[in-house]
Amino acid sequence: MMNATIARWDMFELELEGPTDGNPYLEVSLEATITQGDRSIRVPGFYDGDGRYRIRFMPDAEGEWTYTTSSSTPALSGRTGALTVTAARPGMHGPVRVRNGFHFAHADGKPYLPFGTTCYAWTHQPLALQEETLATLSQAGFNKIRMGVFPKNYPFNVNEPLQDIFERNADGNLDFDRPNPEAFRHFEQQLGRLREMGIEADIIIFHPYDRWGYADMSADEDYRYVTYLAARLAAYSNVWWSLANEYDFLLDTKPMEQWDRYFAILEENDPYGHLRSIHNGDVRMNYDHTKPWVTHVCIQNWDVKRTPEWREQYGKPVVNDEPEYEGNIWPAWGNISAEELVHRFWVTLMRGGYAGHGETYAHPDDIIWWAKGGKLYGEAWKRIAFLRQVLEEDAVEGLTPLGGPETWPWSRVSGARDGNVRYIYFGEHQPAQWTSGLPQEDGDYQVDIIDTWNMTITPAERIAPIIPHPTRHGAVVRGGKPDAAFGVKLPGRPHLAIRCRG
Amino acid sequence: MMNATIARWDMFELELEGPTDGNPYLEVSLEATITQGDRSIRVPGFYDGDGRYRIRFMPDAEGEWTYTTSSSTPALSGRTGALTVTAARPGMHGPVRVRNGFHFAHADGKPYLPFGTTCYAWTHQPLALQEETLATLSQAGFNKIRMGVFPKNYPFNVNEPLQDIFERNADGNLDFDRPNPEAFRHFEQQLGRLREMGIEADIIIFHPYDRWGYADMSADEDYRYVTYLAARLAAYSNVWWSLANEYDFLLDTKPMEQWDRYFAILEENDPYGHLRSIHNGDVRMNYDHTKPWVTHVCIQNWDVKRTPEWREQYGKPVVNDEPEYEGNIWPAWGNISAEELVHRFWVTLMRGGYAGHGETYAHPDDIIWWAKGGKLYGEAWKRIAFLRQVLEEDAVEGLTPLGGPETWPWSRVSGARDGNVRYIYFGEHQPAQWTSGLPQEDGDYQVDIIDTWNMTITPAERIAPIIPHPTRHGAVVRGGKPDAAFGVKLPGRPHLAIRCRG
Repeated sequence: MMNATIARWDMFELELEGPTDGNPYLEVSLEATITQGDRSIRVPGFYDGDGRYRIRFMPDAEGEWTYTTSSSTPALSGRTGALTVTAARPGMHGPVRVRNGFHFAHADGKPYLPFGTTCYAWTHQPLALQEETLATLSQAGFNKIRMGVFPKNYPFNVNEPLQDIFERNADGNLDFDRPNPEAFRHFEQQLGRLREMGIEADIIIFHPYDRWGYADMSADEDYRYVTYLAARLAAYSNVWWSLANEYDFLLDTKPMEQWDRYFAILEENDPYGHLRSIHNGDVRMNYDHTKPWVTHVCIQNWDVKRTPEWREQYGKPVVNDEPEYEGNIWPAWGNISAEELVHRFWVTLMRGGYAGHGETYAHPDDIIWWAKGGKLYGEAWKRIAFLRQVLEEDAVEGLTPLGGPETWPWSRVSGARDGNVRYIYFGEHQPAQWTSGLPQEDGDYQVDIIDTWNMTITPAERIAPIIPHPTRHGAVVRGGKPDAAFGVKLPGRPHLAIRCRG
Repeated sequence: MMNATIARWDMFELELEGPTDGNPYLEVSLEATITQGDRSIRVPGFYDGDGRYRIRFMPDAEGEWTYTTSSSTPALSGRTGALTVTAARPGMHGPVRVRNGFHFAHADGKPYLPFGTTCYAWTHQPLALQEETLATLSQAGFNKIRMGVFPKNYPFNVNEPLQDIFERNADGNLDFDRPNPEAFRHFEQQLGRLREMGIEADIIIFHPYDRWGYADMSADEDYRYVTYLAARLAAYSNVWWSLANEYDFLLDTKPMEQWDRYFAILEENDPYGHLRSIHNGDVRMNYDHTKPWVTHVCIQNWDVKRTPEWREQYGKPVVNDEPEYEGNIWPAWGNISAEELVHRFWVTLMRGGYAGHGETYAHPDDIIWWAKGGKLYGEAWKRIAFLRQVLEEDAVEGLTPLGGPETWPWSRVSGARDGNVRYIYFGEHQPAQWTSGLPQEDGDYQVDIIDTWNMTITPAERIAPIIPHPTRHGAVVRGGKPDAAFGVKLPGRPHLAIRCRG
């Protein structure tokens, strides 16, 4: 019996020697039952080549655990051991979960506000470029990254990947029944480095931009691949499962039942219940995010003022991972201005959702952040980091919009509150004074004006509240009394926000 | 028998002396049958006070016409006369009609592209201010104005009107059975002056912003008032009927059947079939613009990229008369930046609709253009005039969007064509090169880049077309050949457009 000690939410790995004959990927089952007190967890293992089998476990509680393996192969069965789990390392807060319906927190309760970026194929680029990507990420202020397991074949993405994801057979074709351990070891090494940087990895399992055959694997090959990912990667605390980038462009070969089944495989084989989502291409083709296995809404949609609609429609956290990208390349999803992307972040956050970043400036060697990583050349990322910093200062339960999708004036301007803090973001609006949404009772509030582009926060001048003129308005006489205890004087230019604390 | 000569589309007025006893408004019917060859037109008359009755007629064809009056009062019946109609005066093109499904033209065939502004209550302001409004309009480049018959009671609009629209009875109350001829003479004088300036008057018949009682007239009072407006004003060639500003805020006292009836009264009493529309307040409360008596869609909606949806939904010209206004007042519909309003105009036009202007900068004496007229202080109006000038240079049949509401890439960027000219407006997008939507055959095209804010037009550099990289994209391999014969190099900043002629 082995005995090991690891910190809570770190990864314990049991390596076993076993048979190499036949195809262990297809033929050998392996799992462990891991127990603490009355609680037992089934943890699947996987074959890592060269006769090595692994079971990985991320304990979510301190104290003593024991395990016993079972396998279709007697040599791998009945192994036992004990595990001592100590307190989490500093900075490790555990996997991210849904909290308060529309928001997220780490397992230790620390609020998690996703501010993600996108580097679809960064782990398939030359190693020096991958180092540059990690160095950029260490400075950029993002805490999530969308990244694919498979390489990408797309405009600006014509290079071959570092490794094949499956091994090639004698005639040079990919054998989708033989995962390439080298490729996965590299992928999970980068996954671990992201974890140490506090960055969640939103792992894209399928996508249509393929010339190697990954997008055309059979249903059974897909199911085994998803099972393998769960066994191999789920013990990394920073894993999120993104079933696809643009799943709807794969519906010709992967019908809807298959997508539902992938979700089920993750539920069955990921003992930790990492977040699960699925991303659409066509805006009319959102997956039915009300299905119970979807933990949160992942969406591609530039029309960010509709965020409250998606909250209402799906009743889950909304992460708009593709509100178009800052850049200047020819595809229209990849060429909005930095100002516009920052604006879309603020609108989305101030309507109770979350947004994702991408950068797509043309580059002489096609090294574009959105797919390959490298350097950031744009202006939005700094303002997004500023927004994150502003919101994290006061984050408690998560932002709730001040009004519904069509509630005056919140269909036009954006506002949200979280406990004692409230924000009103004006965007393209530039009122010289404002009252709506401010506190209705007089009190000791700290009121600031935030310049979302210049990244300044300055105390606001409080003025008398606006008292709307009474008018016949249908049967309603609007106004006659203010809707808040005080108003705020504003400089009358766009892209400002008010923060009111207290 | 009288004989008169007027120009086509000018107004012929027959004045008759008649009874003053009782209430002629309620008790005396009057109309003329006006005949040219086989064609007879019923033209209603009206009582103008002091025993004067008038029948007004706007002939739409040159040549000889005759008329005969009929009335419930023998003194007004059987009057006959002849009318010689000469060619239209220079610059007079006749009333505006719907043409080509989604567009407008004057009766003589001249394309009419509405570029309207909004001065709801300008005819109720002091006369000097009205002169200033007209002087501004003469320079501003607008060819339509939204203006109410009734005065306005609303924030920033607290002054009493110049005149009551109905006369007051002995105890000082308005008598809704006695129109005030003085008020109407003033209103139609200004209507005539707009006509001479080439400005269409989008006359708002009802609105909810009222403290005098106009919004609470009975159904029968309403019906008589609409009938009177048609008899009195329809002979002005520049009349458009706008049943309401924000009709839905009046539904408590004027149910939907009444709105339908107002439309019918206009159809029955306006011999010329001037344009008829109705404007919503709440974006969820659009009137059913498919009803046959609605000539075009008048809409209030800031979400201007949806313009093609409204075209498809209603199958009529779309005029978004309230895409929010440039300004800095506190109501959120009245404080967008000039840049944003110009952007919304371009998006709307480049998706096959039309937009309306309003300006709402706070003013120490509440003299705000949107309601009272006066001066323009903003920056959008100049760019809107520039847009009008650009489009009128090439206007033939009207702009048709390059794609449907969700067609790639036209849901993101905006493009339209009219015969041999096509435009692509990028807005917040800033590609460094572009191909989609340009001509598919090589040829002798004139290609320009339009800076929509700086109002410059410069020749574009043509470059090789973008050839999309072939990708597996569902079952479709996208690209491999360009979708146009050439591309255009762009400076990679927002708010530019391409114009391609030939």
